[in-house]
This record gives sequence, C-alpha cells and structure tokens, in this order.
Amino acid sequence: MIDTKRAAALLCAMNRILLLTHVRPDGDTIGSAAALCLGLRAMGKEAYLLYNPEITETYLPYAAPCWAPEGYQPDHVISIDVAVADLLPENASAYADCVALAVDHHPSHGYFARETCLNAEAAACGEIVYEILTEMTEITPAIALPLYVAIATDCGCFVYSNTSAKTHRIAAALMETGIDVSAVNQQLFRTKSKVRLKMEAQMVAQMELFDHDRVVIMKIPLALRQEMHATETDIEELSSLAPQVEGVDCGITLRELCPGKVKISVRSGARVNASEVCRQLGGGGHKAAAGATVEGSLDEVKSAVLRAVETVVSQ
Amino acid sequence: MIDTKRAAALLCAMNRILLLTHVRPDGDTIGSAAALCLGLRAMGKEAYLLYNPEITETYLPYAAPCWAPEGYQPDHVISIDVAVADLLPENASAYADCVALAVDHHPSHGYFARETCLNAEAAACGEIVYEILTEMTEITPAIALPLYVAIATDCGCFVYSNTSAKTHRIAAALMETGIDVSAVNQQLFRTKSKVRLKMEAQMVAQMELFDHDRVVIMKIPLALRQEMHATETDIEELSSLAPQVEGVDCGITLRELCPGKVKISVRSGARVNASEVCRQLGGGGHKAAAGATVEGSLDEVKSAVLRAVETVVSQ
Repeated sequence: MIDTKRAAALLCAMNRILLLTHVRPDGDTIGSAAALCLGLRAMGKEAYLLYNPEITETYLPYAAPCWAPEGYQPDHVISIDVAVADLLPENASAYADCVALAVDHHPSHGYFARETCLNAEAAACGEIVYEILTEMTEITPAIALPLYVAIATDCGCFVYSNTSAKTHRIAAALMETGIDVSAVNQQLFRTKSKVRLKMEAQMVAQMELFDHDRVVIMKIPLALRQEMHATETDIEELSSLAPQVEGVDCGITLRELCPGKVKISVRSGARVNASEVCRQLGGGGHKAAAGATVEGSLDEVKSAVLRAVETVVSQ
Repeated sequence: MIDTKRAAALLCAMNRILLLTHVRPDGDTIGSAAALCLGLRAMGKEAYLLYNPEITETYLPYAAPCWAPEGYQPDHVISIDVAVADLLPENASAYADCVALAVDHHPSHGYFARETCLNAEAAACGEIVYEILTEMTEITPAIALPLYVAIATDCGCFVYSNTSAKTHRIAAALMETGIDVSAVNQQLFRTKSKVRLKMEAQMVAQMELFDHDRVVIMKIPLALRQEMHATETDIEELSSLAPQVEGVDCGITLRELCPGKVKISVRSGARVNASEVCRQLGGGGHKAAAGATVEGSLDEVKSAVLRAVETVVSQ
C-alpha cells in the first residue's frame, strides 16, 4: 500500500495512461477519474478514461471529454474507485491483471493492482484523488468541478456519516477555485425525474417493516421498472430512500436485475454492520453502506437478507 | 454596522446577558443563540436565552439548557437571527426598544438595535456567531454542536446556493472539535415519518402536469390528511416536493384546509412570477415562492390557479 505522495510520484513517471471506472458508474468513480485525467493532461501527459458502457446521462458530461479512442493502447492502466477486479466493466476485464495503480477508498478493497493507494477513511475516492493532484499540479476550475461531483455524490452532499472535517475542507478548497456548485447541487440533489418520483412512491406504498420497525425493506421489481420505462438514471441511488424512514436503523433495497437475480443495498446505523450483512451474502462494502448481488426471487432474497441481518446483529 | 471583532469586544464588556430568538424558531436562531450563550458562560458570564414559546421538539434540546429563569432581569439584550423587531416572539416585545446588539444575516434587516453586526453574505447567522466566538473564547464541542445545527439547517446541509467555501471551512472547524454530526444530519436531513412518506407517495401518484409539462400541481386533500392521521410536522414543507419534479419550472401545491378552503403554494423559476400568480388570487410573497388561501373545492382552485399562471405568463 502506498500513500498519495508515492502515488503522485508514480503517476508523474507515467504517460499514455488509461483510467478505469467501475460498473454502474457513480459520481465518485466518474468524477474522480475525469479530474485525474484532466490533471494528467494539464501536466502534458496523454490520459483517457476507458469508455464505461453503463454511463448515465447524469455523469456523461464529466466523462465524455475524456473517453479513450477505440482501440487505444495505453502504457499504464489505473483503476479509480474500483474495490475488486470483478467490478470492472466487461470491456475493461482484459486490463484486470495489468492495473499499475489502484486508487480506492473501499475497506473491502481486493488488492488486484501492482500498487494500491487506499484510504478507507476517505468519504469519497475523490478525496484521495484531490490529494494526489495537489502533489502534482494546480487544481483548476475544470478539475475542481468533477472532483466536487465525486465528493458530493459519495457523501450525499455532506449529509452521510462518512463526511469528515477533511471532506468539508476539500469542498471549500474546490469552491475557492471559483466553480459554481449551486447548479450541480440543484441537478444532483434537488431534482427528480417523474419516473423516479413515481417509482419512489411505489416503493414507499409497498415498503415492509421488520424487527420492531427497525428494519425496512423496499423493492424494485423488474416489472415496475419495465412498466415505467425507467432508465438507469431513474433508478440510480434509489437505495437512499429506505434509510430515510423514521425509526429505522437498517434500510434495505432489493432491486431485481433480471428474473432470478437481485441486487441488495444495505444502509445502516451503528447497530447493524452493513458490510458484514452483505459479506454473508457474498458481497461487501462499508459498515454503513454495503451491497451484494444474489441469485433468487425477490421473496427468497428478502428472507435471506433478513436472516443475514439477524445473524450479524446477534453476533 | 459593526464587524465581528467589534461585536466580540462589546460582548466581552457585558454581563447578565439575555439572548432573543425569532418567531417560528428554526435551527439557525436557536443553534446560534445557544452556542453564543454557552460561549459567554464559558467566559464566566451570566447568559440566558429568553424562552421561545414556539420552540419545536427538533430544536428544544439545544435551547433547554439555556432558558432564562422566569422574571430574569438582564443588563444587556442581544438578538440573534432576527431580521426585524416584528419577528420577536410576543414575550420578547418588551425588549424590542432596548436591544444592545443585533447579530443577523438577513439582507432585509431592519436596524432596530443600538449596534448591528450584519453579514448578508453569510449562509447562516451561525457563521457570524462562529466568528464572534473565535474572537472571545475556545469553541468547545458543547458550543460547536448547536453552531453546526445552526449552519447546516440554514443551508439545507450544504446543498442550497447560499453555501460558500467559508460555510464548509466553518463546518470543518466545528467537526474538528470532535463533535459527531452524523446523528444530527440523520435526524434533521435524512428522516421522514412513515406518514409523511406515504403522503408524498400519494401526492406524486396523483400529480398532474400542465402547460407542456412545465407546471405541476400536487394536492393534499383533507381526506388524505385525516385518513393518515397526519400531524402538522408530517405536512410541514410538503410544498417543497412539487418543485423537485424534473423539467418543471412551476410547482404548485394545493392543501385543502377545510371543506371549501384551499391553501395554495407556488414555487417557480424565472418564467413564472409566483408572487404575481398569488396576487391574482388574493395572496402574495416572493417571485420564486408565494402563497394564497382561496375559497372553493380543490378542483375549482386548481382551475383558478392554472388560469392565474396563464394570465401572468402571457402578460
């Protein structure tokens, strides 16, 4: 494991760099990778993001200027916010064994790269990329904006428990470059598509409470998604709804990916270790936010995740 | 007008201090006043908050340790986050003419005090109180927590456009005292009662779009409120839901107060002047947020408000 100074030194010695993001890309992986890409370019290097086929409209504007041309042959491959090699998109799998540097903040990191710059205390991978960039180059407004998106999205705009004093200090430094974050905040945190609002309404109408109303389960059946013609953007971060229910300290969202396959998202307070719950189901993540993908029907997976919560709580 | 250094100097020379908060007290007035009160006490002074009869359960824990004993006779009276003397609670009106120092951040401030420490750029009055306190005493965790509440509530947890780099820097400094803000964030910004969630779900399920999907109308029928046993807290700020709909620049909420009487809330972007719309219906407000109370059924009022929007837009 290396620190941000050493990571910066490694990057300084590289050129023709390809940056990899993770499947179902969020603001952190895209924003961090785009910011690093622009920083490396500002240093006179050639740098690109590998196209991520699951990019959503929300984050496309940050990634689009960085996409690598088809068939690009990099000299060095860097992964950004990728916990394990399995979370690389399919078109990145050929690079899984030759990642020179992994920059990440997941405690469940799989150490698949030659060198790893990991800080599990960081609210976002964007915090680590910020520190690496400050070692190497000036943070211009063009770099600051995707980095703000990376950090703000991963801490729910400074509301999640991963938000630290450092998170705020970095946000302040980014804003001091002159970027206007109010439009970004409005779009990311204060606007919802009609389809998304309708899906949330359905999820709330059908939510189920367990364990003396401390555990809530919300479901996103495939049929609901199809019926509403929901896009990936519409269902992005829908797992943040369940933990909002008053009195609940474990909010679980079950999303049917395809018949017989369910993605579990667990958001929890101190009583329930979300990472442990998801590890029992073959997944992983953070103590307060974790996930797993499990075979079975929605009802079967519901039973399995409730059993896992019970096991973890009683340990 | 005086700066925070001068305000601190004035406060240093005072003792037996009574702090006043504003009607319908929010996190900023209570948190800022409580923090200043505790700071003054740490300096060996006698300081109290005048009881605010409209205090809600949410902010009571911060105010309660500071309430003045009944009949307290102060030597100096300070107002915190009070824009004009009319916004003092009734039990504070006797002090309206003898406020020694007003600390505030409202651009509409009425200059009713002997000295005024105003910064209309501050996202919260808490930012100004923070600066005054740093001039006078150490910010202990006990002071930092209500100050964090003050700042975070007035900027919607760093999402509103009033959030500045300074706001983030102060939040960082407060967190560095060692306070745990995650419980506060969870309670204030990430919790909704089940009743509220179900009401929002109903409002979304039945929302209606008009004018090429630029105007949305959401309704809160009396029957829905009764059926759900909704309290005032459950329906507080429900009018902030409609303007979140993507693509909409005019979000209208109709709340049936009693049979035949409807409260209209209009939140709008640049195209629709909400104040003009509500003026046509006998109400008023600001360009981006206004209201009116109108006689009629929900359907009648819906037609009336849509006509009003059409008239105002075509003017």
